[in-house]
Order: sequence, then structure tokens, then C-alpha cells
Amino acid sequence: MDEIRLQLLKEVAGLHDIPEGAYNIRENGKSIGRQSTEEIEIVPMEDGSGLNIYVKPGTKKKSLHIPVIISQSGLSEVVYNNFHIGEDCDVTIIAGCGIHNGGSADSRHDGIHSFYIGENSRVKYVEKHYGMGDGNGERIMNPETNVEMAKNSYMEMETVQIKGVDSTIRKTHAKLAEGAKIVITERLMTHGKQTAESYFDVTLDGEDSGANLISRAVAKENSYQKFVSKIIGNTVCSGHSECDAIIMDHAKIEAIPELTANSTEAALIHEAAIGKIAGEQITKLMTLGLSEAEAEEKIVEGFLR
Amino acid sequence: MDEIRLQLLKEVAGLHDIPEGAYNIRENGKSIGRQSTEEIEIVPMEDGSGLNIYVKPGTKKKSLHIPVIISQSGLSEVVYNNFHIGEDCDVTIIAGCGIHNGGSADSRHDGIHSFYIGENSRVKYVEKHYGMGDGNGERIMNPETNVEMAKNSYMEMETVQIKGVDSTIRKTHAKLAEGAKIVITERLMTHGKQTAESYFDVTLDGEDSGANLISRAVAKENSYQKFVSKIIGNTVCSGHSECDAIIMDHAKIEAIPELTANSTEAALIHEAAIGKIAGEQITKLMTLGLSEAEAEEKIVEGFLR
Repeated sequence: MDEIRLQLLKEVAGLHDIPEGAYNIRENGKSIGRQSTEEIEIVPMEDGSGLNIYVKPGTKKKSLHIPVIISQSGLSEVVYNNFHIGEDCDVTIIAGCGIHNGGSADSRHDGIHSFYIGENSRVKYVEKHYGMGDGNGERIMNPETNVEMAKNSYMEMETVQIKGVDSTIRKTHAKLAEGAKIVITERLMTHGKQTAESYFDVTLDGEDSGANLISRAVAKENSYQKFVSKIIGNTVCSGHSECDAIIMDHAKIEAIPELTANSTEAALIHEAAIGKIAGEQITKLMTLGLSEAEAEEKIVEGFLR
Repeated sequence: MDEIRLQLLKEVAGLHDIPEGAYNIRENGKSIGRQSTEEIEIVPMEDGSGLNIYVKPGTKKKSLHIPVIISQSGLSEVVYNNFHIGEDCDVTIIAGCGIHNGGSADSRHDGIHSFYIGENSRVKYVEKHYGMGDGNGERIMNPETNVEMAKNSYMEMETVQIKGVDSTIRKTHAKLAEGAKIVITERLMTHGKQTAESYFDVTLDGEDSGANLISRAVAKENSYQKFVSKIIGNTVCSGHSECDAIIMDHAKIEAIPELTANSTEAALIHEAAIGKIAGEQITKLMTLGLSEAEAEEKIVEGFLR
């Protein structure tokens, strides 16, 4: 593989080589490698617009890698991936998109991922976004994640956008049946003139369903971030959302969390805090020999870890 | 005074008699008593649509009562009151509206209050809303409060709607200059089919300005409440908002707090929690001899105190 491809794959999927288990690697709009396994079947849609992925009931401790990389400036694509997870599964899905844009045209990936999670199944879903390349063209990623969770299923969703994405609009919708739980952790850093908007809505439909949304954001330089979360409780359920943001330089941040209790039995909590790095924290690290910039860097790293 | 009038005045303004100091009592669209003082001048608008109130610079420890009562079914009015508070004042303003509706037509009061608070002045503003009467006509109150706060001024705003208001849309806007602080406490209870919506926006424009918004809400039976708060920090400033709500029976509650940091120096925090009364709290009071309903009543009272 060439160097750019290798770096992108490493950043978005932690891959140094062809992954174990099932995988599909999409590069510049085409699959450049695909492998189904006995338990995880990857079926490309006929028109090339995405994948249907079937995970057999009872599949345990298996992983699926589906990284997307774009190194061609000016490429714009919309990809639909549907994940049909059977009952009693326990799987890890590593998605992610890396864009290298060395040209002057915008490169854009819109990934629409729909999860149908069967009863008693556990899914860990990791999605990393990364951009590089010194062209003037923007690197744009708009992921949309739709999750339908059956009885007693569990999903852990971890999304990370650390660097190089000029513009992103993230949308996540989830609907939970009885006993289902979802934990979403989002980490976002923007710099330069980047903009990032993130919208969550989680509907707690089933008894004893629960959601925990954790967002950690750092906005540097002239960047802009908007965080909107919506938790709707329709029955005996619990929802918690927290949004902590560090604001630096001339950045702007908005946080709009929304709680809707349509039932007496819904217990919903939200917390949000936006502020700069505490002066004492910086001073402390500077007494240990770091420059102010290094101290800030360390604090931001720790905050986003 | 007749009995209904007396009860309404007691509920909304704590008045048993003609108040001391400056006052204006509005009943069924007309002033039935008015008194200016040396420091506080009440000037009715020519068209009868409200009052201009002038508080002289340096006025200390003085109060102003401006209750509104409506006992005539079907009366609908919009009233504009402007409060011009000079520099270095320390005054208490008791507003409030009581509606007795014994008929079948809706009675409605929309009070639009604008405050211009001078440098270094302190204002305590209390606004109570109360409804009674067994007619089918609704009791509707839509208060709008606009506050402009000059340098180093302080405002404490306390709004209470405990009973009998069928429909309310409350709007509060505040804009703070350097060193100004505002503390807003809202207590709201809805029952039956009542609806209450409350919107706050506070813009922290001046350095070291600060806002603290505290909302406590109880929604019973089939009532509906919506709470929307917006704190915008444009400079070195601090904003805090908290919304605690108890939901009972078949009620619905939405909370949408919004934080916008347009400056690195803005420190903004929000907390919200919606839930039912904890079972243990009720059990505890029941072991002390209260019935379940009495226990709930006590807890709600304590929560709204």
C-alpha cells in the first residue's frame, strides 16, 4: 500500500496491515479489499452505494473493519451501510473515514450507517475521522448514524474527530426498546476555521432503557462548534447527558441539550459546562518545565483522552 | 374592598390593605388607586395602556407595589410598564397578577415590563401569578420582562406561579453591562390541563457580568411545561442555569437550556434534572403518619419554597 493510504488507515482504523476477520476497505469510492467470514457477511449494494452487513445470531468476540479513505481531491460520495446484527451477539465494529486532500477541490464523505441490533446483543462501534493534506480543498465529513435497539441490547458508540476535518455535521438517532442501553462518547477537536455540529436524539421507548451521552469538545483558534442533544423519555427509563467543552483563542461554542419527559417514570439529567483551561492548571505544568503552549497541549490531550 | 379583590391582592402582592409607599392597583383594566412618592413617580400612559415609573437616583430601601387583578370574565388586556431606575438605588418592586374568572369567557393579562436599571442600582423584583374562580373561561397570563442593566447593577427577580393559571407563556430577556449581575428564580406549578412555557435569554455583554437562573417546576396531572433558557457569554463573564423539575401523574416536561460562549473568557454551566419524587422520600413521610397524597404534597411544597 502507498504511504498516504497507510497513514490514513492507521489513523482511522488503527490498521497497519490487512485486518483479521471481516473487513471492507473503501478507497476513492470503490472497495479495494473485502472479506466476509462465516459469521459476518458483507454484501455490497448493487448500485455500489454501500454495504449490507449481516451478523449471524450468536456471533461472539468478532470484529468488523470498514474504513473509508479518500485521497482523490474533489471526490464527493454518499455511502449507506446497514448493519443487521442478530440476537445474542457480541461484536466490535471499527468504521472511520480519512481524507487526504492535496488539491483545491473539496473532498466529501457522507456516511449513513443504520444499525438494527437484535435482542441481547452487544455492539461496540468506533468511528474515527481524520483529515490531512495541504491542498486548499476542504475535507468534509457528515456522518449519520441510526440505531434501533431490540430488547436488552447494548451499544457502546465511540466517535472521535481529532484533526483535519474542515466541516462536519454529525447526526445520531437512537430508539431503544425494553432494557436496552446505549453509551455514546464523542470527542471533538476543531481548529483553524473548522466547524463542527453534532446532533443527537435518543428516544427511550422501552421500560428500563437507558442512555448516557458524553461529549468532550475542544475548540481552538477561529473554529465553531455546536452540540445539540435531545433525550426523550416515554416510560420508566433513565437518561443522562453531559457536555464539557474547552474554548480557546477566538473559538465559539454552543451547547443545546434538551430533555423531554413524557412519563412520570422518566429520570433525565443533563449537565453542561463551557470554559477555558484553568490558569492554575497551566501554571502547574509550567513549573514542571513546560512552555505555556506545551502545557495547554497536554491539558487538551488529557481532556480528550 | 370586596372579598375576591382582597383575596387576589393578598395572593399576588401579599397585601392586606393599601400598601405603604408608591403603588398602583389596576383592576379590570383601570387604575383603582395610585400613589406616587417623592422618590418614585408613577406616570400613566395617555392611552391607558400602562405606566411609566421613574425612580430617582439615590432612592434607597423603598418599595413599589403594582398589582393587577381581573375579576371580570372575558377581559383581555395588554399592559406596558416601563421602569426607569436611576443610579445608586435600592428598591423592591412587587408586581403580580391575579385573575378570578367565574364566567365562561377567557380572561387574559399580558404584562410587558421593561426595566432600565442605572449604574450601581439594586432591584428586587417579585412577580406572582394566581388564578381562581370556577367558571369555564380560562385564566391566561403572558408576562414579558425586558431588562437592561447598567454597570455594576444588580437584579434579583423572583417569579412564582403556584395555582390556577391555565395557560402562560413567560418571556424574559436581559442584557448586562460591565459588572452587572442578575439572579432569576422561577417557581412554577401546573396541574389539570394547564400549560406553561418559560423562555429566558440572558446576554452577558459586559466584563465580569454574571447570571444565575434557577428554575423549579412541578407538573401534575395532565399539565405540560416547557423551559427554554439561553445564556450568551460575549466576554469575561459567568453564567449558570439550573432547572429541576418534578413530574407527576400524566404530566409532560421539556427542558432546553442553551449555552453560547462567544469568548474564551466566558464560563458557562448548566444543569437540569427531571424526575419523579423519590419513593424513599414518600415512604419516610408515610412512616411519620402522613397519607401518600399528603406526603407528596409536603415534598412538592418544600421543593417550591
